[in-house]
Amino acid sequence: MIDDLIKANRSCRRFHENQRVDLKTLEELVDLGRLSASGANLQPLKYILACEPQINAEIFSTLGWAAYLQEWPGPEPGERPAAYVVILGDTGISKEFGVDHGIAAQSMLLGAREKGLAGCMLGSINRKALREILNLDPHLKILLVLAIGKPREEVVIETVGPDGNIRYWRDEAAVHHVPKRSLRDIIVASHSPGPN
Amino acid sequence: MIDDLIKANRSCRRFHENQRVDLKTLEELVDLGRLSASGANLQPLKYILACEPQINAEIFSTLGWAAYLQEWPGPEPGERPAAYVVILGDTGISKEFGVDHGIAAQSMLLGAREKGLAGCMLGSINRKALREILNLDPHLKILLVLAIGKPREEVVIETVGPDGNIRYWRDEAAVHHVPKRSLRDIIVASHSPGPN
Repeated sequence: MIDDLIKANRSCRRFHENQRVDLKTLEELVDLGRLSASGANLQPLKYILACEPQINAEIFSTLGWAAYLQEWPGPEPGERPAAYVVILGDTGISKEFGVDHGIAAQSMLLGAREKGLAGCMLGSINRKALREILNLDPHLKILLVLAIGKPREEVVIETVGPDGNIRYWRDEAAVHHVPKRSLRDIIVASHSPGPN
Repeated sequence: MIDDLIKANRSCRRFHENQRVDLKTLEELVDLGRLSASGANLQPLKYILACEPQINAEIFSTLGWAAYLQEWPGPEPGERPAAYVVILGDTGISKEFGVDHGIAAQSMLLGAREKGLAGCMLGSINRKALREILNLDPHLKILLVLAIGKPREEVVIETVGPDGNIRYWRDEAAVHHVPKRSLRDIIVASHSPGPN
């Protein structure tokens, strides 16, 4: 059931780094992005895959992790992602990428979750450094990085309280808590023919 | 399996309009968006739901349909969507919405597909007219409209040919064909420890 998968698909930031993710797995995930909707069907997204320790370490060095956990600089060696998918926009195809990378990233992380993996969409990227590491052609723009691996942390959904605070937090047992707004707080209006 | 669902989840533009979609179903879909990832967990998305013929007709009048089918102005009466989810960005929460609405829209349409429904993400919107119809507060920005209903058309995935043409087309039997780029055309580079 898709709702179970979506609920289980929490952003994960600590992994069993020594549990490798192979290239075939990453290609299967990209295929899910490939077959997802694209604005005007332009399909301007391109991908770079990484599951090799040396390049992984270089990619890792360009990423910003959990902004709200100010005392936590990011995952330590041994709990870092085992793989990355770098999502690029091909400016030779389109200058605007709309929400194509959001759609594709969601498909890919749902696929990862189904395989027993977990991931995180990272937008806080030192793009200049990552361009150099990946030796990117000028027509390719860095949109998002997906970090992927075998999950090493527990994530729990909470309800946003009356103060409206949406900052996630980590408890003593290192469980990660994520407050989500309730349905009644996000539905502005409903137009229906009356009681069903 | 998520890959079957993603493959089956084709953008649909013709529906059995008389097969109603109720408010509970729309709320279940919004709940899937609600539980999906959000940049910095800000959750700035808000939603308006519609499944009532009069408001549906007004929303329909603001939408642009398939840009590449120049002889087809959009679905005729009887084959129009039975419901809409209007995705809004709350500028009181964030000025930038990143790809949050792409992530949420993909979750919602996968959920719709699992329920035997289909939909289409529409970004070609007469936003000024839709604002008036929905009587929107100034702090809410229209991001996307999801059209939803019981599907009335067949959609087939094709492979983009050597000419690179990505325009979808409709054949004599009104089957809708959508060319997708192949995996080898979208993966720019792979970094792995060697043959697995």
